[in-house]
Amino acid sequence: MAIEASKHKTTQRKLRLGMVGGGEGAFIGAVHRIALRMDDQFELVAGAFSSDPARAKASALTLGISADRAYGSFQDMATVEVARSDGIDAVIIVTPNHMHGPVAKAFLKAGIHVICDKPLTTTVQDAEELVELVKTSGKLFVLTHNYTGYPMVRQARAMVAAGELGVIRLVQVEYPQDWLTEAVEQTGQKQASWRTDPARSGAGGCIGDIGTHAYNLAGFVTGLKLEALLAQLTSFVPGRLLDDDCQILLRYQGGARGSLWASQVAVGHENGLKLRVYGSRGGLEWVQADQNYLWFTPFGEPKRLITRAGAGAGSSAARVTRVPSGHPEGYLEGFANIYTEAALALRAAIDNSPLDPAVVYPTVQDGLDGMKFIAAAVESSNNGNVWVKLK
Amino acid sequence: MAIEASKHKTTQRKLRLGMVGGGEGAFIGAVHRIALRMDDQFELVAGAFSSDPARAKASALTLGISADRAYGSFQDMATVEVARSDGIDAVIIVTPNHMHGPVAKAFLKAGIHVICDKPLTTTVQDAEELVELVKTSGKLFVLTHNYTGYPMVRQARAMVAAGELGVIRLVQVEYPQDWLTEAVEQTGQKQASWRTDPARSGAGGCIGDIGTHAYNLAGFVTGLKLEALLAQLTSFVPGRLLDDDCQILLRYQGGARGSLWASQVAVGHENGLKLRVYGSRGGLEWVQADQNYLWFTPFGEPKRLITRAGAGAGSSAARVTRVPSGHPEGYLEGFANIYTEAALALRAAIDNSPLDPAVVYPTVQDGLDGMKFIAAAVESSNNGNVWVKLK
Amino acid sequence: MAIEASKHKTTQRKLRLGMVGGGEGAFIGAVHRIALRMDDQFELVAGAFSSDPARAKASALTLGISADRAYGSFQDMATVEVARSDGIDAVIIVTPNHMHGPVAKAFLKAGIHVICDKPLTTTVQDAEELVELVKTSGKLFVLTHNYTGYPMVRQARAMVAAGELGVIRLVQVEYPQDWLTEAVEQTGQKQASWRTDPARSGAGGCIGDIGTHAYNLAGFVTGLKLEALLAQLTSFVPGRLLDDDCQILLRYQGGARGSLWASQVAVGHENGLKLRVYGSRGGLEWVQADQNYLWFTPFGEPKRLITRAGAGAGSSAARVTRVPSGHPEGYLEGFANIYTEAALALRAAIDNSPLDPAVVYPTVQDGLDGMKFIAAAVESSNNGNVWVKLK
Amino acid sequence: MAIEASKHKTTQRKLRLGMVGGGEGAFIGAVHRIALRMDDQFELVAGAFSSDPARAKASALTLGISADRAYGSFQDMATVEVARSDGIDAVIIVTPNHMHGPVAKAFLKAGIHVICDKPLTTTVQDAEELVELVKTSGKLFVLTHNYTGYPMVRQARAMVAAGELGVIRLVQVEYPQDWLTEAVEQTGQKQASWRTDPARSGAGGCIGDIGTHAYNLAGFVTGLKLEALLAQLTSFVPGRLLDDDCQILLRYQGGARGSLWASQVAVGHENGLKLRVYGSRGGLEWVQADQNYLWFTPFGEPKRLITRAGAGAGSSAARVTRVPSGHPEGYLEGFANIYTEAALALRAAIDNSPLDPAVVYPTVQDGLDGMKFIAAAVESSNNGNVWVKLK
Repeated sequence: MAIEASKHKTTQRKLRLGMVGGGEGAFIGAVHRIALRMDDQFELVAGAFSSDPARAKASALTLGISADRAYGSFQDMATVEVARSDGIDAVIIVTPNHMHGPVAKAFLKAGIHVICDKPLTTTVQDAEELVELVKTSGKLFVLTHNYTGYPMVRQARAMVAAGELGVIRLVQVEYPQDWLTEAVEQTGQKQASWRTDPARSGAGGCIGDIGTHAYNLAGFVTGLKLEALLAQLTSFVPGRLLDDDCQILLRYQGGARGSLWASQVAVGHENGLKLRVYGSRGGLEWVQADQNYLWFTPFGEPKRLITRAGAGAGSSAARVTRVPSGHPEGYLEGFANIYTEAALALRAAIDNSPLDPAVVYPTVQDGLDGMKFIAAAVESSNNGNVWVKLK
Repeated sequence: MAIEASKHKTTQRKLRLGMVGGGEGAFIGAVHRIALRMDDQFELVAGAFSSDPARAKASALTLGISADRAYGSFQDMATVEVARSDGIDAVIIVTPNHMHGPVAKAFLKAGIHVICDKPLTTTVQDAEELVELVKTSGKLFVLTHNYTGYPMVRQARAMVAAGELGVIRLVQVEYPQDWLTEAVEQTGQKQASWRTDPARSGAGGCIGDIGTHAYNLAGFVTGLKLEALLAQLTSFVPGRLLDDDCQILLRYQGGARGSLWASQVAVGHENGLKLRVYGSRGGLEWVQADQNYLWFTPFGEPKRLITRAGAGAGSSAARVTRVPSGHPEGYLEGFANIYTEAALALRAAIDNSPLDPAVVYPTVQDGLDGMKFIAAAVESSNNGNVWVKLK
Repeated sequence: MAIEASKHKTTQRKLRLGMVGGGEGAFIGAVHRIALRMDDQFELVAGAFSSDPARAKASALTLGISADRAYGSFQDMATVEVARSDGIDAVIIVTPNHMHGPVAKAFLKAGIHVICDKPLTTTVQDAEELVELVKTSGKLFVLTHNYTGYPMVRQARAMVAAGELGVIRLVQVEYPQDWLTEAVEQTGQKQASWRTDPARSGAGGCIGDIGTHAYNLAGFVTGLKLEALLAQLTSFVPGRLLDDDCQILLRYQGGARGSLWASQVAVGHENGLKLRVYGSRGGLEWVQADQNYLWFTPFGEPKRLITRAGAGAGSSAARVTRVPSGHPEGYLEGFANIYTEAALALRAAIDNSPLDPAVVYPTVQDGLDGMKFIAAAVESSNNGNVWVKLK
Repeated sequence: MAIEASKHKTTQRKLRLGMVGGGEGAFIGAVHRIALRMDDQFELVAGAFSSDPARAKASALTLGISADRAYGSFQDMATVEVARSDGIDAVIIVTPNHMHGPVAKAFLKAGIHVICDKPLTTTVQDAEELVELVKTSGKLFVLTHNYTGYPMVRQARAMVAAGELGVIRLVQVEYPQDWLTEAVEQTGQKQASWRTDPARSGAGGCIGDIGTHAYNLAGFVTGLKLEALLAQLTSFVPGRLLDDDCQILLRYQGGARGSLWASQVAVGHENGLKLRVYGSRGGLEWVQADQNYLWFTPFGEPKRLITRAGAGAGSSAARVTRVPSGHPEGYLEGFANIYTEAALALRAAIDNSPLDPAVVYPTVQDGLDGMKFIAAAVESSNNGNVWVKLK
């Protein structure tokens, strides 16, 4: 239990968090709250849970937030919290996408660290401004690309880095879902409504919602930088305003190639994120729904099943693992690992103490990369499926 | 997020817990602490984490327990806590097996509810005394047979109860592991030491450690009562004092039959708990390591894959589920479900309010059944593998 | 294509076969005919395809047998064929079980080699007489326990023999089906009728039909001899005269133990033969329906997937394999391997030439072992599930 | 056993075949010979097994061909056989790719039916000439795109045709292998040598060898016609003259889209052909290595496992199936189905009798389509990965 053992090593107190968005009924807010509690590093002490002040207060009450820290607006929260001696150490942003940027700016300017849901913003320009602001503010910015927290994703990344696959040649990544097979956004389904609305989601639909996860995962595991892409985005469902399927060819710096497929109309898939990486000496495969397993084939040898915390899993997986092999971990544990890494980074920042070099988490730069990826894919698709260089 | 939404419905405060055993380095203590935090229903405020007072204090400090509630003995804790106005609502017992009984008795006698790890005790007589004491005390007793908390186990139970399998004929349950393939108890491995020591584990080794889990799961899903068993317990590893493999034939009341296999020397298995149930109209299969899936075959139709929170999963699964289908849940979520059910039961008991009839959790009676199962298996094996009736 | 390359090495002609039973509409006769054609070692030139002479002739015509070798009785066939200069080299017996013995005796006495479907006979005494007759006749007797022909079964056997699993401790074998879930024998279904009729199938139902396959496979792979068994045979379907489910505990000579489960009422299983073997150093698992794969776990290392003709598969598998890895082989290829081994043995016997020591096939002795296994299981079950020694 | 039962219905004799290419040591020749024997519809009576006359004779002898029908050249074989009263009914062409066209022309011109391995030729022009010649000759031309013979591929095709998936939106097909991960063609490996040699394989490497299989399979199952493609062909291994990896975007007539990936450097894959099809009402998935299974998800319902000959499989699968469900069929059975369909078509053609409309097999037109596909992919890749219309 490496994670629990490390608790309180630096500051001997829990880190204090506030949340913007994520009131009652919001799926992702609840996920963040479970994740932050998992390893007992944090307490949630403040919130502006809704843009509707009454709803914000009600949510705060339900969540056990004291009345004086239940804010009606995120601006108030930034102003008041920074002035309190027991003010929040960091803010969690779980609003709809188009508000990520404005909220993050307000807290960074107030000198408060940020933990933000993906995608970073809705435009590349907004993302670039945010990157700049993070730099000048000197504050931490943790982007919750949660799949990077899975132990076997860490294991895969370590194996690639150690050269166990040789030179990487091919990256095949896919993220099929089927929940938008029919026009549910026209029936008032809330999750579908904002995800298919350009005003709230930006220029990308499927590409922004899940394509970015696939892209981020591939880069995280392989360490490769994308040089150019060629995309075909499609809206299969009549009347849909954003893409619900993305077929993308990939060219990485250094010569690796691959493809990315994300879809919200692939009947039979729930959250079918799958990554396959092939090198000159080996290949590996990982499937999110069965996250405790990693398949590895050294060229010319039988395929091997590496299990989380089992034989063949190394220290990169072990440090973000809680239970023994054969007892599965899930999505929430992976999400919590992002929070635990954030806790280590926040304590080091706040205490001005050294940070374990093994700590890794997605940053504002990853968020900007994701926005550029979306923009390039949309540009390529709109221009007749041509190669577009990532800038 | 049904679970989060239900928070504070009754008492508008977190439930207060103390823990006996489970200090630093103890695996199962840490699991219980994560589980109790998952849905934010509890706070851990007191502890007697070790029989060594110095170690108990150190653990308490690390776990953020205030000094006045870090106890050197469980007896002190029972006496002092019951007298506090903010005393604990329930105690968690995560000591070695032979201490479960004495600790439980102390807290029940003090009028404090109990959450206890399995197995209940080390002898049937102790277990029977405890059942009697629970009755007379009027207190709740929650036994953490955690596999009953998995959503697809709940789903399976509901399907059997609804008659989707017809009359149950066969129950095939197995729990293979391989961690005792070699004589690690002779090398000082702590987990192996007490689990292979009759003084600390009772008369059963493998049968008590994991055979009881398999037995409990089969009964939970099918609702069947075991009438008799015939067991062959074996110690394959030279010098081992308790069984490391159990082959058991099962006869249930009403005519169903089956077999149970548990092993700690089955190379290639981590925690291979698997249940298969066959009836006159259908069959189902569930594997703990892949807990989000349930296979169901209606006779004469194609096999179906029911996924947690996906198509085909009903309300029994939904009420103990946190994330959407395709995003896996794991062992800790299943364990947390036992705690969340306990929270609902504790609030109803403390507030004298009605309890949702859907709430289900293993009790002291399940613990007694498990002890009788172990005793019968040992008796059968010692007497030449003869049928022994469950009393 | 080692098999094809070896063709005609000894006699430069195809081996001539006759068939008893297996006329039109009989499933297993057609399987034998495809199997004997697969590697072009045999030609089918004579037959007594039915006890009804008219039907026998009609089947012969359809199968391209010349009129003078279409026999109305097996006795005629034995008498006439042995006298022909181009008479059959061997007879294939695919009659209902109770006729295996009489037909085999007739041909052995005539000096003709025998290829016979399992089970050998319907009683142990008949089987013992046949063993004796084979000895005195000096003829070959090949029993088509076809699962022993699968390449990965050969691979598993070779790995056990080479000590890759260490000392074998546990054998878990099962063969679940579901086709007798309902009382189809009462609806005139032909396959079900004779298989549930003691007069035609002997004292065992499920145990004789598929339990013997499981038993034979376990012995073939491990090389272990069964010392004793304890069986619980059940007829779940009302009115059924023979067992449709068998739960058996196993004790092998030398200390290995295990269990065997065979069932014809396990809804969701087609031909679910599965073998798992565990030793002091490793474990392996093989599933008939996915016969091209063998799972092997060296203790303390990741599980490995050995594929037929792929990395990790050795010469034992290679010599009975036709197509490259990744292109599946099936049931018919496994069955054909028995015939190809038989061809090698027959040529060596006929030509009085040396036989490749790698050749292996089930014999009349395996058939007798199977009959003893059935008898012991029935005896154990009838006497209250007691241990019965194999004689 | 529908297939065996149908034997001799038309001509009451076996069909006579000759073979060009496929002498000893040639993998695919042996596969064709097993396939033609499987259902006893054919006899191999003539051959020009090698362009080296001595080797041709030796192979013929080994294969049991009479000396007067062991030809030194395919031209001789065509001339002589057509003049014999017992001449061959059809020729099998299993030469290297560049000889398919010349040999086929010689036999078609002689008035002999043709069964030919894929790809059809090495250029589109050659293929078009062959299509024309087939038309004018009035002879049958069977292209052995063997994967179309698998029962579950037939099942999938029937389900799409019956509208069970609704309107098809997406086709994801892949065929990864790993056997060319290293430059084995430089070590004298024969299979690798000709497959990576433009002179013998044509302009496509991986695209021609296995990409065409994937393309053909997708079209066979969906019935969709490809409108345009955009391809990125890569040679990852230094010094390799042809592509060893293909990434292709697909646009079908009517609006369906998809992608095709074929690779010979994807470490861990043997013959990983996999097809996924998604429509407005359902999705399905089929994997060649596990050919007995078909996964089908009706939108909003649990995923179903349809097994060959099991529940849910219809008549399209049943008519090309030999053994019951749960007993696997393999590659050779699928290949044999092409031959059995060919036998039905040949008998109808020779006897001038009606042909069962259920009979389906790949034709010279499919071969031309494949050549156009290869040409378009090479053109797209050479011109900077632009859309190329299929002509």
